[in-house]
Amino acid sequence: MTKLKSLPLTKISIDDSFWDKYIKLVQEVIIPYQWEILNDRVEGAKPSHCINNFKITAKEKEGEFQGAVFQDSDVAKWLEAVAYSLSTNPNKELEKSADEVIHLFGKAQDETGYLNTYYTIKEPNLRWTNLKEGHELYTSGHMIEAAIAYYKATGKDEFLQIMIRNADLICDVFSKDKNSEGYPGHQEIELALVKLFEVTGNKKYIDQAKAFINRRGHRPYYFDKEEKRPEYKRIFQEFAEYLPLYSQSHLPVREQKTAEGHAVRAVYMYCAMADLAYYYNDLELLESCKRLWDNITTKRMYITGAIGSSGILERFTTDYDLPNSSNYGETCASIGLALFGRRMMQITRDGKYMDVVEKALYNTVLSGIAMDGRSFFYVNPLEVWPDNCLVRTSMEHVKPMRQKWFGVACCPPNITRTLASLGEYIYSQTDNTLWINLFVEGSIGVNIQKKDLVVTTKTKFPFEGNISIQLEGNDDLEFDLAIRIPGYVNKYNILVDGINIQDKDCDKGYKYIKINGQKLIEVSFDLSPRFVRANPLVREDSGKVAIEKGPLVYCIEEIDNESNLPAYFVDTKQPINEEYYEGLLGGTTVLKLKGKKISQDNWTLDELYKETDVVWENKDLIAIPYCYWGNRTPGEMLVWMKEYYGG
Amino acid sequence: MTKLKSLPLTKISIDDSFWDKYIKLVQEVIIPYQWEILNDRVEGAKPSHCINNFKITAKEKEGEFQGAVFQDSDVAKWLEAVAYSLSTNPNKELEKSADEVIHLFGKAQDETGYLNTYYTIKEPNLRWTNLKEGHELYTSGHMIEAAIAYYKATGKDEFLQIMIRNADLICDVFSKDKNSEGYPGHQEIELALVKLFEVTGNKKYIDQAKAFINRRGHRPYYFDKEEKRPEYKRIFQEFAEYLPLYSQSHLPVREQKTAEGHAVRAVYMYCAMADLAYYYNDLELLESCKRLWDNITTKRMYITGAIGSSGILERFTTDYDLPNSSNYGETCASIGLALFGRRMMQITRDGKYMDVVEKALYNTVLSGIAMDGRSFFYVNPLEVWPDNCLVRTSMEHVKPMRQKWFGVACCPPNITRTLASLGEYIYSQTDNTLWINLFVEGSIGVNIQKKDLVVTTKTKFPFEGNISIQLEGNDDLEFDLAIRIPGYVNKYNILVDGINIQDKDCDKGYKYIKINGQKLIEVSFDLSPRFVRANPLVREDSGKVAIEKGPLVYCIEEIDNESNLPAYFVDTKQPINEEYYEGLLGGTTVLKLKGKKISQDNWTLDELYKETDVVWENKDLIAIPYCYWGNRTPGEMLVWMKEYYGG
Repeated sequence: MTKLKSLPLTKISIDDSFWDKYIKLVQEVIIPYQWEILNDRVEGAKPSHCINNFKITAKEKEGEFQGAVFQDSDVAKWLEAVAYSLSTNPNKELEKSADEVIHLFGKAQDETGYLNTYYTIKEPNLRWTNLKEGHELYTSGHMIEAAIAYYKATGKDEFLQIMIRNADLICDVFSKDKNSEGYPGHQEIELALVKLFEVTGNKKYIDQAKAFINRRGHRPYYFDKEEKRPEYKRIFQEFAEYLPLYSQSHLPVREQKTAEGHAVRAVYMYCAMADLAYYYNDLELLESCKRLWDNITTKRMYITGAIGSSGILERFTTDYDLPNSSNYGETCASIGLALFGRRMMQITRDGKYMDVVEKALYNTVLSGIAMDGRSFFYVNPLEVWPDNCLVRTSMEHVKPMRQKWFGVACCPPNITRTLASLGEYIYSQTDNTLWINLFVEGSIGVNIQKKDLVVTTKTKFPFEGNISIQLEGNDDLEFDLAIRIPGYVNKYNILVDGINIQDKDCDKGYKYIKINGQKLIEVSFDLSPRFVRANPLVREDSGKVAIEKGPLVYCIEEIDNESNLPAYFVDTKQPINEEYYEGLLGGTTVLKLKGKKISQDNWTLDELYKETDVVWENKDLIAIPYCYWGNRTPGEMLVWMKEYYGG
Repeated sequence: MTKLKSLPLTKISIDDSFWDKYIKLVQEVIIPYQWEILNDRVEGAKPSHCINNFKITAKEKEGEFQGAVFQDSDVAKWLEAVAYSLSTNPNKELEKSADEVIHLFGKAQDETGYLNTYYTIKEPNLRWTNLKEGHELYTSGHMIEAAIAYYKATGKDEFLQIMIRNADLICDVFSKDKNSEGYPGHQEIELALVKLFEVTGNKKYIDQAKAFINRRGHRPYYFDKEEKRPEYKRIFQEFAEYLPLYSQSHLPVREQKTAEGHAVRAVYMYCAMADLAYYYNDLELLESCKRLWDNITTKRMYITGAIGSSGILERFTTDYDLPNSSNYGETCASIGLALFGRRMMQITRDGKYMDVVEKALYNTVLSGIAMDGRSFFYVNPLEVWPDNCLVRTSMEHVKPMRQKWFGVACCPPNITRTLASLGEYIYSQTDNTLWINLFVEGSIGVNIQKKDLVVTTKTKFPFEGNISIQLEGNDDLEFDLAIRIPGYVNKYNILVDGINIQDKDCDKGYKYIKINGQKLIEVSFDLSPRFVRANPLVREDSGKVAIEKGPLVYCIEEIDNESNLPAYFVDTKQPINEEYYEGLLGGTTVLKLKGKKISQDNWTLDELYKETDVVWENKDLIAIPYCYWGNRTPGEMLVWMKEYYGG
């Protein structure tokens, strides 16, 4: 089966009431802000040293390397976001800044193709000696992805040529003859090399990606061998006691049955595995991908699409271990999950993958960024009590407020590139079918069977369930339009030029509609808010409910209610009332619930434990979308609410 | 008001069905086992190097120092336990081993009185240069305490003289003229110096203790100044970002209103503060002690008497922050809390302190040791799911099974000395009053108004509430017998030679009985099991109940019930049934409860979240005392159970 393709971003225009505020932020705030950050020009934010490191490497400046070993990747992610942004919103000044950085890359690259500021400035003799911690391949991967995006956006190939030279070096250094066992400590190069194969057609790149993936997990472990060599030099003290599963190198990938280790590393690797499974028609590898996906999404994923529940090592732990207040749930991991899911949908055409992609994008990815675009969450808890988020305690990784910029700044630029490339998630196509995966207002130009047509979507999704899809230019064209019917939709209605077709079967979450000149498809989803429960094996959530509306998970915040949110019990026998608040959080539907709260009346402040009855107070509750939490006065937040079982 | 005294251990004999199994373990298993550990002769346990370090220091051996900077304190705590044990159970062979170690101490001590193996072997030029991390004063403190205990137990003063020389050195080094600002990073020397004053009558020791306490918390901080000196050398990397509150040096002690920082350091300091408040009649300091005690026991203490809820830095966090599964709750911290509470009761004669002391001893201190005496808990969670207690995750400090011996081995010898000195908690006296604080079978010889009398207690407390107290030798004696009426006792009855006196008032938790020749006091407490709730501000416990019987907190374990304990909901409207199981866990009363469990029937293993109703199953539950958890097949454990509010 042919893999679906995303449409080129240059053909997609988004004009959506839900997403526009974020996409505008990317163009107007985040990309310029991050550019200032990369140049160390933001007061009160930690200097990133990024551009400076490249200038030193290019000998334009004197100085020492500063920042993390993978600092270069921040510039790469910024450039990738710039590229996506330029695809839809040309901006000469921005393009000029990007071109200057790219030119700087050229000067910083050495004659062999090597390009990495940390190793060039700080450890020139230690290149490729510490794959476990050194992040050279990771950084190159992000640079290659950025170069491809920039090439696609602008048609200019200076950056692409730089990164082809770098990729050629990597293919040489890690060839069978020279280093037949090495693989990266942080996966990312693999999916970049696949993309480079896709854009250049040169098979050596994907072969190298395959080699990296296939080398993982064999004993004796490469990282153990590497560490015994005289030239090995440790970078991170906490890696002294290294668990191979941290980097998914505990087993050959085909034998991995559960999602283990650092969550971002894991999902980036699964992306590459999915790509390789497709291009090499490797059904065994595809089975591994399906198994790992299922393990995550049926055992190890928060309802918000967050993954990786341990603060220490930002890692997966065990099935059903999903603590709500102490969890990590890194924004970047959910971005990786969305990337993985998109690939799986494009290979299998199964809407279940897109259900999770949508969940991750609408909840954890968006919660990662403030509505003013100037602060970010790394960690995405489902329950927050600001009082106990104290530094130098077990809760220190949890921040009750978004932070300006982090020392390790992976998440902000990763969110930026994701928002800027949103169009790649919305639509997919083959030669004769167009898939609509997400419901976002806007229009696309698409070429089906060599005919150009224009598809215009109008909707107020996710707050309302009506979606109208208008086709133009399809008068002499017969093709299939596949519309995703999300797993959470219990009732829906589809009219094609006024004719009801909802009795036709869905195929794996998609409704395939034969279009033969029809112009208007009117979809209507029932997006009534719903109470959702977790499998009782999720010990943290038993006796609790969450509320969802469409793909949105809702939460309660102290500012709309009272403090001590865990003392609330929701009465699920009462209806949930919806109301759209124009002026709240850029316009949002709030949900109103009935419940009870355990009273403080029979307790004094001197009493911690005693024999007493519970005294209940009736309380109304207001819930807002989880993605918007923490954008007002800081306070408590809660997703999973206790359920009141009394009469 | 005169401070009460504990009775000499040599006058106390314990013969109690509840405690004997532990006290016998101390004599028969733990002390011999720890002796083997100190001598590195236990296979499978981490070598302690303790004795070896002293032999190297004494030049009896060649070699390197090994172990932690405070390694010497393990031997000290062992010797203190040996002393207490010898007080009640003379043992020539054990005494010979102890004498040999003491003799070795003498050889390891230098001519100035200095005695510390780490600094003598490893950093001879850095003595007293790193009070923040070096633990020299902490180690000396434990050595002094051991020396005093050994002197009291055996009458031999070799050890005491060694430690007097050491204390003299400390008083000199930290005198006003030489170092007028230094104080220890880990408090302990202060309470040892008070004891040394008590046993020698030399006021300089308590003056030095007072100076150490009064120096804390003034700015600029001593530890900051120390760190800037050229001779400073960091020992613990994680102390690079040091919070002064970690060692309670963030504020002068009189200004401290909340219990902060490392829990063991905190309570050891509060012990010294209470001692100083008494001896200097310092009412302001006593107020500080009361305020800090109240902050702990009304805001920051688990129902088990565990304190210090953060795994990172083993520290207090904030009011009402008492997570059940990820908590630290170090055994040593509860021991320190008991030591602090005993002092406060002895100063104030208020039984509320003894309520907490009893809670800590019967629950967290006992849970720290396996019923075979061979393995130990540092960390005392109230909820355990072994599957998620994974190394290299946020839960790695929590162990579902007791461990043989730790690298940092403070808890096992601390438990040992506490059990061996239990008698010091049971009784207190002044010239004309005898207090019975805890209800333990056994007899004492006590001198009241220069008359010797024998008091014999018979009871099956805490499983039964009847306590009979027989007096002998009091024919011509008028004195007061004070019997503690625990805060948890709702109904009780006291007969004195058959005459009911329970209508007389209690004074701060003690019933004072005028004894004028009477022989038999029969106390009967209602120890029916009870449901207890937490203040609703304890977010972790809202909607939950705990079960207590007397001082015992109960828990449910997987082995007596089923897995997935958090899915159980207790029906608090149903009675709790008690049953004594002779053969279980050395003989224990189990509690039988009625409840419901959320069924798994409407869930498949592929479903993580969905719209569905809760299906209930009726379930009976069996609870055992918390202190006995983890002594059978490893599995889940839970103290705070959800409450079923349905009909």
